Amino acid sequence: MTPESDPHIDIERLLSRLAELSEIGGIDETTGCSRLAFTDADRAGRELVLTWMRDLGLEVTVDGIGNVVGVWRPDSMPEDARDLAPVMTGSHIDTVATGGRYDGNLGVLAGIEVIETLATEGFVPPRPLAVAFFSNEEGARFAPDMMGSLVYVGGMGLEQAHNTVGIDGATVGEELDRIGYRGPAPCPGLVPHAFVELHIEQGPVLEEAGIDVGVVEGVQGISWTEVTIEGQSNHAGTTPMRLRHDAGFAAASVATFVRSLARELGHPQVGTVGAIDLHPNLVNVVAASATLTVDLRNTDNGILTGAEQRLHTHLDELATTEGVAVSTRSLARFDPVVFDSRVVDLVEAAARSLGATTLRMPSGAGHDAQMMARVCPTAMIFTPSHKGISHNPAEHTDPDHLAVGADTLLQVMLDLAGGGWSRP
Amino acid sequence: MTPESDPHIDIERLLSRLAELSEIGGIDETTGCSRLAFTDADRAGRELVLTWMRDLGLEVTVDGIGNVVGVWRPDSMPEDARDLAPVMTGSHIDTVATGGRYDGNLGVLAGIEVIETLATEGFVPPRPLAVAFFSNEEGARFAPDMMGSLVYVGGMGLEQAHNTVGIDGATVGEELDRIGYRGPAPCPGLVPHAFVELHIEQGPVLEEAGIDVGVVEGVQGISWTEVTIEGQSNHAGTTPMRLRHDAGFAAASVATFVRSLARELGHPQVGTVGAIDLHPNLVNVVAASATLTVDLRNTDNGILTGAEQRLHTHLDELATTEGVAVSTRSLARFDPVVFDSRVVDLVEAAARSLGATTLRMPSGAGHDAQMMARVCPTAMIFTPSHKGISHNPAEHTDPDHLAVGADTLLQVMLDLAGGGWSRP
Repeated sequence: MTPESDPHIDIERLLSRLAELSEIGGIDETTGCSRLAFTDADRAGRELVLTWMRDLGLEVTVDGIGNVVGVWRPDSMPEDARDLAPVMTGSHIDTVATGGRYDGNLGVLAGIEVIETLATEGFVPPRPLAVAFFSNEEGARFAPDMMGSLVYVGGMGLEQAHNTVGIDGATVGEELDRIGYRGPAPCPGLVPHAFVELHIEQGPVLEEAGIDVGVVEGVQGISWTEVTIEGQSNHAGTTPMRLRHDAGFAAASVATFVRSLARELGHPQVGTVGAIDLHPNLVNVVAASATLTVDLRNTDNGILTGAEQRLHTHLDELATTEGVAVSTRSLARFDPVVFDSRVVDLVEAAARSLGATTLRMPSGAGHDAQMMARVCPTAMIFTPSHKGISHNPAEHTDPDHLAVGADTLLQVMLDLAGGGWSRP
Repeated sequence: MTPESDPHIDIERLLSRLAELSEIGGIDETTGCSRLAFTDADRAGRELVLTWMRDLGLEVTVDGIGNVVGVWRPDSMPEDARDLAPVMTGSHIDTVATGGRYDGNLGVLAGIEVIETLATEGFVPPRPLAVAFFSNEEGARFAPDMMGSLVYVGGMGLEQAHNTVGIDGATVGEELDRIGYRGPAPCPGLVPHAFVELHIEQGPVLEEAGIDVGVVEGVQGISWTEVTIEGQSNHAGTTPMRLRHDAGFAAASVATFVRSLARELGHPQVGTVGAIDLHPNLVNVVAASATLTVDLRNTDNGILTGAEQRLHTHLDELATTEGVAVSTRSLARFDPVVFDSRVVDLVEAAARSLGATTLRMPSGAGHDAQMMARVCPTAMIFTPSHKGISHNPAEHTDPDHLAVGADTLLQVMLDLAGGGWSRP
C-alpha cells in the first residue's frame, strides 16, 4: 500500500524515549548515562527497551550473548513475506562509564520509532523489519568492544565470549546469567536481508561543515599499539644529558612523532597518543619506564600498514639513540570496512529526498554495523554531534538532526525492503 | 699536639654504623631504607644516632624543628678554645620512601667517625668540632626539602614550618611533638666557623670519569615549573587532525622542547620532564588536559633564567598553534649557590694529599650545605655513586671511596679548625 503522503517519525516520542532510557544509570541530573555492559543498570535499560518492543508486537529473541532482536511481522503481512529475511536496524544500549544519552541508544530507539511510525500508518512492508540491540558494544567493561555483534556474525565463539574477564574481575557468562540475559537464540544469528544503523557521528566534521546527514561509506581501519619503554631512573639534577636513558623523553618523542606522521600522511589518517604513564613520575627523577598507547586509523589499509611500519622504525631508532629498551604489544587491529555501495547510495538518496544536506564520510569509530557488514549489505547514517563530543554527558545532537536522521533510516529501511514510499 | 702519623677513619666502624642505621626502616633485606621525616622510623633512627653522639661525649642540642647538633669539646680543650664557633659537618638521616643507606646518613655518620677517630688519637682541636643532622632534608613527606637547614639559618620561620601539612595530612608540629623532637634550642641556630658536608654524588659523573673525590664548588640553581594544559577531549578516530586541541600532544611537545633546550644550552644545563599526567588517559580519546613538570638546572643563574624564558615562549607558541590553554605554577626556584673558594680549595688539597683523584663539579641536587652557605664558609665533598643511582635501595658507593671521602672530611675539618695535621 502507498499512503497519501510520506510518513515521518514522531520526534517528540523519540526524544521522550531517549530521555526515559537515559534516566537508567543517569548521571548529571540525567543528562548522561552510565550503563556498563551486563550491570544492573544495563539490565534495567534492557527491560525498558524490551517493554517498548513488546508493546509494538515485535517477536523478540535473546541469544547466548544477550543480543536482543525484535522482528516486526504485522498481522496482515502475507505468509510468503513473513518468511523473508528481515531488513534490520539497530545498535546498542550499553554505554561507557560516563556516557551520553544518544550514542547507541539513538539507533535502537530510532529503529523502534520507525516501526511504530509504519505500524501507526497501517503500512505493511514487503518483508519483515527488525530492530536489534547488541551486547557490550562499548567494551568499557569487557574487551573487545562490539562483542555482541561480533558473536552474532560468528566472529567470536560463545565460549570465548563467556569466559571474558572484565575490569572488575567478573566474567561475561556469570554476568549474563546474573542479569538473566543468556538467551536460547543461536549464535551466529539470523542473517538479515540488509542492515542499516543510525548513529551520532561522535566527531566534529558534520557540524563544522554545516551538514545534516553523514552518508557513511565505511569504517576506518584501527591499529592500537601499546609501547613500553625501559630506560634508567636517574636524578634530574645530577645526571648530565649525555648520560641519560630517559623513558619519559622517549615517550614524548613517540607522541610528537605520531603527530608528524599523521600530518604527513594527510587526511583521513589520524594518530593519537591518548595515554602516557611514567614511572616513578616525579619532578626530579628521570623516568625509569614509560607506557603509552598509539592509536592509528585510516580507511586505506595499505597506508595504515605503512604508518604502523613507520612507527616501528621510529621506535627502533629511538631505542638506539636514547639507549632504552622498547617493546610493543598490539591491543587491537581491525582492517578498514567498506560498506555496500548500493546501501550507501540509498542512504544518500533518502536523505536528499528529505531535503537534507549530505556528506559521504568514513566512520572514525567502530560500530556494530561493521560486524554486520560481514554477513549482509550494510551502511550507516550519521547525525551531527555538537562540538564532536561523545562518550560524555555533554553529548548532544539537535532534535532537527535527530528527526531527519531517523526519517532517513525509515526511508532506507523501506527501500531495502523493496517497498519504497512515494519518492520519485 | 701533633700525632706521629696522619690518622685515618676506621672504615669498618663507619660501614658497621651505616648498616646498623639502615636496618631501621630497612627494606629489601636492609639494603635500602625507608625513614620519612618525623615518622616512627625517623625517631628510631634519631635515637640510634643520638646514642652514638652521646657515647662520644658530644654536647647535644635539639632545636624547634628537630635539628640535632652535637658539639665536641674534649675535656682537655683550653677554656678560650671552648667558646669559639665550631667547625661543623653533618647532613640528614631522613630518607625518601625507597631510599638507600648512604645519602644523608653518610655525612652524619662520617662526621661522628671523624670525631671518634680524633678522640681516639687524643687529638684536641683548636676549636670545637660539631656534627649535625638536619630535619626533613628530603621533603618527601613535607615540602619543601632541606626544611631543617632552611629553618636553622633563618630562611623559614618555625611557625610556618610547624604548620606544614604533609602528604598524609599530618603537620610538622604535631609530628615533632609526637616523636618528642620539638627541642628547646633556638632557631636560627648557632653559626659555625665553617661547614663542610660529605655526601654521595647521586649522579654518574665521578664513576664514569674514574675519579675518587668530587670537589663541590656550588649547587646548581633549580627551577621547577608545573605546566597545566587544557585542550579538548575528542574521539581519537572521528576527529580530523586539523580540528584537534590535544593536551597530550602539547605535553609531549614540551618534553621534547626541554630536551632540545638543554642540549642547545650545553653542559651543565639539564632539563627534565619527569612527570606527565594525561586526562582521561585512554587509548582512543584525545586528551582533554595534561599536567607535567619541568625541572631546569644550571650553575649560571643568567643562563637558567634564559632557559625559563625560552620555556615560557614555547608554551605561549604552543597555546596558539594547538589551541590549548596553558598555565604554569612555580613549584620551586632556587638561585645557584657558590661555595666558599677557600673551603673548596681545602677540599681539593686534602683529597689530593690522600692520593685521591679529584674533579671540581657542581652539585646537581640540593643539600643542607647550600643552606649553611648562607651563614658561614661552606663546601662539600662528593664520593662516587655506583651507576649514579640514588633514592633507591640499589644505591652504592665502594668502601674505598667512602674511606677516602671520610678521611678528606677529617682533614678539611682540621684545616678549617686551624690545626692541620702533618700535611706539607
